[in-house]
Amino acid sequence: MTSDSQPTPHPLRPLTDEELSRARDLVVEKHAGDGVALFFRSVYVDEPKREELTEYLIAEHAGQTPKTRIPRQVTVLFDRVKDGVPQLTEEIVDVEAGEICRTKEFPAYCQTSYTAAEFGLFHDICVASDMFKTAMEEFSIPEDFTITIDPWPYGGLDPEEDVPRYMQGLVYARKKTDNNPDANHYGYPIPIIPVMDMATKNMIRVDRLATGGKGDSLYPSPPSDKPKELFTHGQSAEYAPELLDRPLRTDVKPIDITQPEGASFKVHSDNLVEWQKWRFRLGFTPREGAILHDVCYDGRPILYRLSFSEMTVPYGDPRPPFQRKQAFDFGDGGIGRAANNLKLGCDCLGAIHYVSTVVANPEGKPDVAQNVVCMHEQDNGIGWKHTNFRTDRAVVTRLREFVIQFIATLANYEYVFAFKLDTAGGITVETRATGIVSVVPIDDGKVSDYGNVVFPGVLAQNHQHIFAVRIDPSIDSYSESETAVVLEESHPIPMNKETNPFGNGYEVRRERIESAMYTDAEPKVNRTVKMENVNKKNPISGKNVGYKFVPNATQLMLADENSTQAARAPYAKHHLWVTGYRDEELWAAGEFTNQSKKEEGGVKAMVERGDWFVDTPSASSEKGQRSHPVVWNVFGLTHNPRVEDWPVMPVEIHQFHIRPADFFTSNPALDMPGKKNETSVLLSCCGKTESPQTNGEKSGSTQADPLTHQQGTGDDIDPKKLQNGNGATDKENKRKSTTLSKIFAWKKEST
Amino acid sequence: MTSDSQPTPHPLRPLTDEELSRARDLVVEKHAGDGVALFFRSVYVDEPKREELTEYLIAEHAGQTPKTRIPRQVTVLFDRVKDGVPQLTEEIVDVEAGEICRTKEFPAYCQTSYTAAEFGLFHDICVASDMFKTAMEEFSIPEDFTITIDPWPYGGLDPEEDVPRYMQGLVYARKKTDNNPDANHYGYPIPIIPVMDMATKNMIRVDRLATGGKGDSLYPSPPSDKPKELFTHGQSAEYAPELLDRPLRTDVKPIDITQPEGASFKVHSDNLVEWQKWRFRLGFTPREGAILHDVCYDGRPILYRLSFSEMTVPYGDPRPPFQRKQAFDFGDGGIGRAANNLKLGCDCLGAIHYVSTVVANPEGKPDVAQNVVCMHEQDNGIGWKHTNFRTDRAVVTRLREFVIQFIATLANYEYVFAFKLDTAGGITVETRATGIVSVVPIDDGKVSDYGNVVFPGVLAQNHQHIFAVRIDPSIDSYSESETAVVLEESHPIPMNKETNPFGNGYEVRRERIESAMYTDAEPKVNRTVKMENVNKKNPISGKNVGYKFVPNATQLMLADENSTQAARAPYAKHHLWVTGYRDEELWAAGEFTNQSKKEEGGVKAMVERGDWFVDTPSASSEKGQRSHPVVWNVFGLTHNPRVEDWPVMPVEIHQFHIRPADFFTSNPALDMPGKKNETSVLLSCCGKTESPQTNGEKSGSTQADPLTHQQGTGDDIDPKKLQNGNGATDKENKRKSTTLSKIFAWKKEST
Repeated sequence: MTSDSQPTPHPLRPLTDEELSRARDLVVEKHAGDGVALFFRSVYVDEPKREELTEYLIAEHAGQTPKTRIPRQVTVLFDRVKDGVPQLTEEIVDVEAGEICRTKEFPAYCQTSYTAAEFGLFHDICVASDMFKTAMEEFSIPEDFTITIDPWPYGGLDPEEDVPRYMQGLVYARKKTDNNPDANHYGYPIPIIPVMDMATKNMIRVDRLATGGKGDSLYPSPPSDKPKELFTHGQSAEYAPELLDRPLRTDVKPIDITQPEGASFKVHSDNLVEWQKWRFRLGFTPREGAILHDVCYDGRPILYRLSFSEMTVPYGDPRPPFQRKQAFDFGDGGIGRAANNLKLGCDCLGAIHYVSTVVANPEGKPDVAQNVVCMHEQDNGIGWKHTNFRTDRAVVTRLREFVIQFIATLANYEYVFAFKLDTAGGITVETRATGIVSVVPIDDGKVSDYGNVVFPGVLAQNHQHIFAVRIDPSIDSYSESETAVVLEESHPIPMNKETNPFGNGYEVRRERIESAMYTDAEPKVNRTVKMENVNKKNPISGKNVGYKFVPNATQLMLADENSTQAARAPYAKHHLWVTGYRDEELWAAGEFTNQSKKEEGGVKAMVERGDWFVDTPSASSEKGQRSHPVVWNVFGLTHNPRVEDWPVMPVEIHQFHIRPADFFTSNPALDMPGKKNETSVLLSCCGKTESPQTNGEKSGSTQADPLTHQQGTGDDIDPKKLQNGNGATDKENKRKSTTLSKIFAWKKEST
Repeated sequence: MTSDSQPTPHPLRPLTDEELSRARDLVVEKHAGDGVALFFRSVYVDEPKREELTEYLIAEHAGQTPKTRIPRQVTVLFDRVKDGVPQLTEEIVDVEAGEICRTKEFPAYCQTSYTAAEFGLFHDICVASDMFKTAMEEFSIPEDFTITIDPWPYGGLDPEEDVPRYMQGLVYARKKTDNNPDANHYGYPIPIIPVMDMATKNMIRVDRLATGGKGDSLYPSPPSDKPKELFTHGQSAEYAPELLDRPLRTDVKPIDITQPEGASFKVHSDNLVEWQKWRFRLGFTPREGAILHDVCYDGRPILYRLSFSEMTVPYGDPRPPFQRKQAFDFGDGGIGRAANNLKLGCDCLGAIHYVSTVVANPEGKPDVAQNVVCMHEQDNGIGWKHTNFRTDRAVVTRLREFVIQFIATLANYEYVFAFKLDTAGGITVETRATGIVSVVPIDDGKVSDYGNVVFPGVLAQNHQHIFAVRIDPSIDSYSESETAVVLEESHPIPMNKETNPFGNGYEVRRERIESAMYTDAEPKVNRTVKMENVNKKNPISGKNVGYKFVPNATQLMLADENSTQAARAPYAKHHLWVTGYRDEELWAAGEFTNQSKKEEGGVKAMVERGDWFVDTPSASSEKGQRSHPVVWNVFGLTHNPRVEDWPVMPVEIHQFHIRPADFFTSNPALDMPGKKNETSVLLSCCGKTESPQTNGEKSGSTQADPLTHQQGTGDDIDPKKLQNGNGATDKENKRKSTTLSKIFAWKKEST
């Protein structure tokens, strides 16, 4: 209970330098004198418990002073290293009280994500090791190449495997072209994978890779007597403009996106964002990147929390050791940790607001990750339109979107993530996959069933990306028990005299999810997930107010049910999971994915717990508890690479749309002004702009645009002859086509 | 053979006024003195035969003078009315030779699309008729309302029904608010449907509509003794800004999209368009709207023709006469005929090129439909990106798109269609559904299984929109026999010691389509349609060069297999059809959809013909002929309306992507310049623009952005304190986060 006149700081405010330092110092102090070294992995805010935060939010939105002051807790994750043995430890620190309130020590098999420092370490020790040098003697590499290693997670353990914290490296050569460190080494993979013990810093072994093609063995052939000559083809795999084997296009004219009157959004303190009736708090975590808290529209809550939770990238090459090639880019890496420092005019166009975040360096001290999130408005074409055919009056408004974007680089690969709020009350969740596909060597001239040859000697392996988005709804209420999840489907009704005499009728079926479960997308019945408030009805339709989305029926994980790949990511085997809410449960594949053999504490475990969402549980659900439903939407892409994905792949875009369903009493974008944009210009045939006087206002000539033009000369049309009419009215243009409005103008409308 | 020095006019050049008049005059001349009246329906270019056009295109692209001069033929479709009986007739006129070369008279049951003139006629005769007046006596309507009728296609005939050309009307009242003709009458439906014989101009009957709710009869109740009072609730259904029940938003700041150096595309004569290595000829037909002919990239053909072919909108309300409520917006209406006259700065933002078209009025004389297509470039976010984690060097390019857009109004409803070419060699086909949902009356206070109450007394019926896109490929060759269609799928391999010892392997299966067939989308196996050139291999991968798309597994038509709705549109029952090419076969549901009982000459008939695509047909295909494969992609939306879809629905967007698959030897967008856009600006927290000096160049402060800001005051942050760093380098900012590049900078890379 705070009684002073200072406003209570918002529990979702971002971490500060001072808080981070304070938490770190308290941890250092606690462990001082133990004879241990501390290796800091990450420091971030411990999110408030839902019950406490909900109470706060209700008061906040009611304009009241929240009664409870939520303790400010910070999580410090670190290795406590004694006698060379690291103990992964988590201390939750109350930075205001100045005390450690909770300590967790994790079992040795729990491997948290790698840090940048570990990556650097791996590289140095590996290249200096005799084991690596010996392995490299198998190959002869042209003199103008240098060795480069991409450190990678060791991946999932085989059932019989029991190893400490390992890291492996994908080995490449880089052409020393112009001494340019941005030459693309991924064009020159070398068929070995060194493995290191991260605790002892010892090289464990060097795995050798099979390099055969169709019909060849799954296993590597023994080394030949003399070094194998690599990289003799001389072709270019470069993408950096100064190294490119072709000139850059010179005919891409700039598109400028400007907001001369400023943007329509506001960013307040404590990362409160307001835009076009939307309001949310932006969060950012080392693992998830940007997250949206307390998403409201016009003062009504919709989502308590929206986040990307996990993504796994299983590779479909059956040759060992590629069964271990399965990245968990959130659990093994961390999208927030890997977030790009975004650049104005490159990553984001227009009027942009950037957000930075405080992170811990290996000593646990604060650093700033600059511009990890960008926010801006954009135009996405027509939002709604209707033309009255009687009067020819068109009312047209644009679809305006507010984009929250962040980008992560995971070694070779890039992901662009975005949440897009729009003026029609919708939320689009978008992923773009780009970057460089992961490649392995293949013998010259061979092709493979396991991937595509995208460059001489380079096999881009077939793989999948399977994303999980966590949606914690608060549909028009912060109460945990008011939200229901309903599956709505459209089914045919067999033709029958009583209810469907002509066979055109179909039926909408609804089924409320009563207990934790999973299911799949089913477009055959248009399966739609509705998140509804069971107590609030739409005054027009009488139905529960809600938001809905249609899960995309993208391909699920292909790996065999009994494989380690599948066991590590059961979430990737179904499109939709509905689980009972528990504080701190944010991870679709569980907290520790790195070197896991199977999921622990992910959505599968949550479902097995048997929580229920109705007042009276069914018998089978009795072991869990009455819970608030959390929805996990799983989608992905099967990526059998194209040559066009080389050397950097064009974005592959996936989206799903969370849209209001009887949440409002009419189109929420109805009050969008249909104002004509005054800077748009008419172009003549040849890309040249018309003189301003003819910009749609004074035009009216019906001659000489391409479709009515008559001379088949093959030459460009003289731009001076091209003044296309735009919006010409009947008065201005007697040769306007016979439209309905004209017909109706001829008649006298009945009155 | 042309031997003069004049270049041969391009066979895909648009129709001219003169050609249209000439064709019409020749038809009038032919029928003069027959004692007949001619009612002109449409006049358009008769597209050249594929064989002839192909020969021309090959010569054109080789820079040679085409040997054959293709006859210039124009189709004139008209009613030849004798003694009040119309005979639908098509004359193909050679406008250069000045002769009619072909005449087709259609059987009486073939009903072509309605013209605007017919719509106007219906309205006048109906409201003046005693039959309509008597029917209206059942209702009492407030004095400030006037009657308005939307003419509609009569729809599919029931099996036993045999009627001449009919039209029906949906009857509404319109509030005479401010005498504004744009008041929304759709909020006030009246439960009768008048039906007229279009030949005799006689009213046939007035159907009465059931207005009950859940559990009520499928059939209308008999009229009560005294008139039923309608529209007493007084609520507003308006969308026109001047009539709106709420103020327009005033905080939507403009987004200006400008191209100060002009656009990057060129439109030449004979509607040749060039943009960023793309080249195509734009066509426009009364039925399809815009179509793309001869789509090439970097001189290599990809698609011979790309078009929207049909869309059916079946309604799922089983109550008669709604079994007939099934629009075919291409066959019954015509997207080109219904195309909007687009407005600069409203329908299209930026630097826009408009295209108009010549159409025939009811007298067969030329009119111009202004600005029916707009073309422009747009930015669609990041196109490809890679950051080298060692150097922190990001190379990022934008995804530039070229949009060909057209919009059609079909009474209450709008569709926005677009083809989008992009810099990565991709083609996106997009539809946006908007406009006013079709509604019927429902008794006050009732709800229905057949739709949603979106306004008092107004039921928006459940329905579907099912689109067919016709793709005629010419993959790297104009030769008809070189293109193959292949289904490629990714399948799990059961775990087994020999080929998949760890269970992570999966298999890519290919099956060439050998004869005409249909199938469905199957995301479970990632079913992908590849259009390949069987003779041209990608020099890198060794695979056939190709383009591919993944058919979306959207819900197919729900109507019972034995229903008239299903019989009229078999195409809507499967996602993918592959048929043998024949000239003039462009229509998924056949040429005549209006009042059809079943498809004739649509994709079902084409498949049944049994054409084959390989040199040696299988036994079952022997009845057809060796053909070039044409691909039809079917997708749609099941639209069970939301209250948010009222009064004008926010766009519902559907897309599919035709993308290169080993067509190129690397990412075709590799040469896109990653030039920084100089007009993008930084925003402080409050939507205000930073002063230009701080635009990303001189910034470096790491303080005081929302996520690092520390004072929880609840007030806005002072914008002066907010100068977010952007692109700060290590030199400029010592508190940059611990990134890999820093780690690697610490180490000396092995050489």
